[in-house]
Amino acid sequence: MRMTLAALADLLAGKLEGDGTLVIGGVAPLDDAHPGDITFLAGQKQVARLAASGATAVLAPPDVWVDRPAIRVENPALGFMRLLEHFYPAPPPTWGIDPRAVLAPDVVLGARVYIGPYAVLCRGVRLGEDVTIHPGTYVGEACEIGDGSTLYANVSLYPRVHLGRQVIIHSGAVIGADGFGFHPMPDGSYRKIPQVGRVVIGDAVEIGANTCIDRATVGDTVIEAGVKLDNLVQVGHNSRVGKHTVLAGQAGLAGSVYVGAHVRMGGQVGVADHTTIGTNASIAAQAGVMTDVEAGAAVYGSPALPGPVAKRQHVYSLRLGELFQQVKQLQKRLDALQAQE
Amino acid sequence: MRMTLAALADLLAGKLEGDGTLVIGGVAPLDDAHPGDITFLAGQKQVARLAASGATAVLAPPDVWVDRPAIRVENPALGFMRLLEHFYPAPPPTWGIDPRAVLAPDVVLGARVYIGPYAVLCRGVRLGEDVTIHPGTYVGEACEIGDGSTLYANVSLYPRVHLGRQVIIHSGAVIGADGFGFHPMPDGSYRKIPQVGRVVIGDAVEIGANTCIDRATVGDTVIEAGVKLDNLVQVGHNSRVGKHTVLAGQAGLAGSVYVGAHVRMGGQVGVADHTTIGTNASIAAQAGVMTDVEAGAAVYGSPALPGPVAKRQHVYSLRLGELFQQVKQLQKRLDALQAQE
Amino acid sequence: MRMTLAALADLLAGKLEGDGTLVIGGVAPLDDAHPGDITFLAGQKQVARLAASGATAVLAPPDVWVDRPAIRVENPALGFMRLLEHFYPAPPPTWGIDPRAVLAPDVVLGARVYIGPYAVLCRGVRLGEDVTIHPGTYVGEACEIGDGSTLYANVSLYPRVHLGRQVIIHSGAVIGADGFGFHPMPDGSYRKIPQVGRVVIGDAVEIGANTCIDRATVGDTVIEAGVKLDNLVQVGHNSRVGKHTVLAGQAGLAGSVYVGAHVRMGGQVGVADHTTIGTNASIAAQAGVMTDVEAGAAVYGSPALPGPVAKRQHVYSLRLGELFQQVKQLQKRLDALQAQE
Repeated sequence: MRMTLAALADLLAGKLEGDGTLVIGGVAPLDDAHPGDITFLAGQKQVARLAASGATAVLAPPDVWVDRPAIRVENPALGFMRLLEHFYPAPPPTWGIDPRAVLAPDVVLGARVYIGPYAVLCRGVRLGEDVTIHPGTYVGEACEIGDGSTLYANVSLYPRVHLGRQVIIHSGAVIGADGFGFHPMPDGSYRKIPQVGRVVIGDAVEIGANTCIDRATVGDTVIEAGVKLDNLVQVGHNSRVGKHTVLAGQAGLAGSVYVGAHVRMGGQVGVADHTTIGTNASIAAQAGVMTDVEAGAAVYGSPALPGPVAKRQHVYSLRLGELFQQVKQLQKRLDALQAQE
Repeated sequence: MRMTLAALADLLAGKLEGDGTLVIGGVAPLDDAHPGDITFLAGQKQVARLAASGATAVLAPPDVWVDRPAIRVENPALGFMRLLEHFYPAPPPTWGIDPRAVLAPDVVLGARVYIGPYAVLCRGVRLGEDVTIHPGTYVGEACEIGDGSTLYANVSLYPRVHLGRQVIIHSGAVIGADGFGFHPMPDGSYRKIPQVGRVVIGDAVEIGANTCIDRATVGDTVIEAGVKLDNLVQVGHNSRVGKHTVLAGQAGLAGSVYVGAHVRMGGQVGVADHTTIGTNASIAAQAGVMTDVEAGAAVYGSPALPGPVAKRQHVYSLRLGELFQQVKQLQKRLDALQAQE
Repeated sequence: MRMTLAALADLLAGKLEGDGTLVIGGVAPLDDAHPGDITFLAGQKQVARLAASGATAVLAPPDVWVDRPAIRVENPALGFMRLLEHFYPAPPPTWGIDPRAVLAPDVVLGARVYIGPYAVLCRGVRLGEDVTIHPGTYVGEACEIGDGSTLYANVSLYPRVHLGRQVIIHSGAVIGADGFGFHPMPDGSYRKIPQVGRVVIGDAVEIGANTCIDRATVGDTVIEAGVKLDNLVQVGHNSRVGKHTVLAGQAGLAGSVYVGAHVRMGGQVGVADHTTIGTNASIAAQAGVMTDVEAGAAVYGSPALPGPVAKRQHVYSLRLGELFQQVKQLQKRLDALQAQE
């Protein structure tokens, strides 16, 4: 696809600055852009990186000086996203059921579904409209999959998982495996506690590759609408993740964790069982949350502490050498003073 | 299923307290219970949560006052587990071999096996009785799978993995991939060290979704009987995990780690290679074990320290601000004292 | 396979010491060796463990005294690797295309390929020579797989992944899933940023079981030649990992991380987005890298600090109790001094 800069300015309802007849053939971030590409500048801080960029033109906020033809928009990152969608449109979906897919006789299918070779849909499965199930994916008994959802290759859904609409599940994810619950017996062995609950996933949730969400012991493990889970995330049994919350890669929630809406969790965060994290809280990467986190709080470290405390602790710890020196000096001064008497 | 409270008391050999004719239709934990459900109270601490619970009746220990009809038992958690088993019995297994499974001609099968569509069993595989292999699971050459074991969908067993009896392996788990062993060459590249050992897994082991257990370089990586591994756990080559040890989600053992029996490891724990962890030790979540841990010890933090030391360190670190203040004051007092002279 | 010690000495071009007619039937590390095995001694430190070893003979460096027949070589670990290759040769590969594999009509195949049952190769896929694709593996549209590469069972490659030659990908790995990129919208929800880039993997890369490498938003996520990734590793979108770099199990790179060549990263390391790690740096297990790391540096801890600083901090923190005591004593001495006046 090739478009003039003027046409792109129209598309984004932005203000053209410079030669509108320039032809743009691609979209790329600052450091990867080549001549013929348009890039974007998030703000003043990136002006130096723009100077080194090969881009022919730039999406820029209204108030930042730039060194080349530009389209001025209020939110360049959003504009960039729109250009990506425009230059690299998703391929039209394929519909149809591959003869090598296995569908139990009572599977219910909405209009326009794709089911790839070697996918397996067990008894009682119900799919909405516009559902795509890639090859090798397993959908256990009585699962429900809402309209517009996509399951990539080699996903595993255990029985009775319920997916909302527009859900995306990446390859290797496992939804609904047994919660990790065992009862210690007098002989030191463990007896498996039956895991008879479900997993319920809301609309517009995206679940990363090889992420695991365990079914509840009883009741439901719940991922609310709009949640985004990165790859290799673990969600334990009976946990609940609130709307539009985001968990980065390799984060893990033990059992019965309640995460509010709009929470942001960094990579490799761990949250202990029976912990509550309030709405809009922010958990820094690698933090270990052992106690409840208040709504809106930002916590860091393991065990996790509120931001100001954690930062103070960190600064103190870096000044420890200084403190040891000061104490040694105080001892010397006091020794001298006493010797003097 | 619906039963009277009196019948449930009989089932559990517990003492009925209150109206035995009440009809119970479900089992649920305190916070999820609705009218018609029976719940359980672990102890005195949960009495406040019981007050808010919708449960019609409660399993309770003998000595705790409760506000509603109850069955008194010594171990309510165990009783709860029995009620779960009673109210939600596992569906009867299906036996038979799907015509779309691939079995090498020399595969040996015990009585009553289920092999789902698109499962692949390579040459020399031997299954015991009552074995269930779900769709899409791959069993490499010469694997042995003991009586009563279950492999869920999309599991991968590399060649020569040996599973005991009553083993459960959840979806996406990979058993027997090559150990991570490379020899540094003079040019800075790495040469792969052949990984020719096995993985041997004992009876009644449960392995979580997407967990990985690597084969030994030579000899065996061993998971002893009764071990429970949660999801996304990593067990490196030549490690050995002792009987009835439990590893929570995302824990990782590097190579040649020896973990004793009855050890409890929290989520995201990491253990360095060639480390020994004694029987009955307890490793707190996110701990980083770099040196041997004594039998019975409890360790915390990264690098991991014994419980009392780790707690003292944590308290000290939280009091650092105070210490800086005290030193500043000492300096001022000493300055004043010297100025005075 | 059985060989005399003299023949093995010839094979390794080492110096025979002791009875060359001894027959050796196996190769094992010190602690696992039985009579009839040959083992190896890395250096002086292991002499005590050799005494307890059942091995009949030992590969040893020239200058270390040993208690049994030996072959002297400069690099016993390398010699051991060669013996492993000799005693346990990899089985000859099988070639051929299973009739139950699905190949799009335009798939291009090199000479000598194996494609197992239930593997799926989509439109536009190109394989080089000597490629092995095990059962249940999914290869998306327009992927290219170089000569001599092996994909184990149940691997998932999303479209347009490019693998070099001699690449090994273990079971459950997912290459090319969407990068984790979302744009926050005014209503608190997230809009998915199209992920239209690729994943490009160099020659002789090995990728562990259940490891995930995300495609770039635009441009390429790049794993350069000779890189070794262990199991359950996460590589975020637009990251680049330099030649012959090694990442241990459960390590994670966020987006746009640049890792130089010859870097060694321990298990469970996390690296924040837009971070650069210089050539030949070393990152200790569980470290959290939040800022750039210089070439050749060794860092520890979370947040990661240079080795000497981190060690000093650790020692200081262990001496905190002492410091609190000293300050208390100073206060008492000063009190006494002032009372005296």
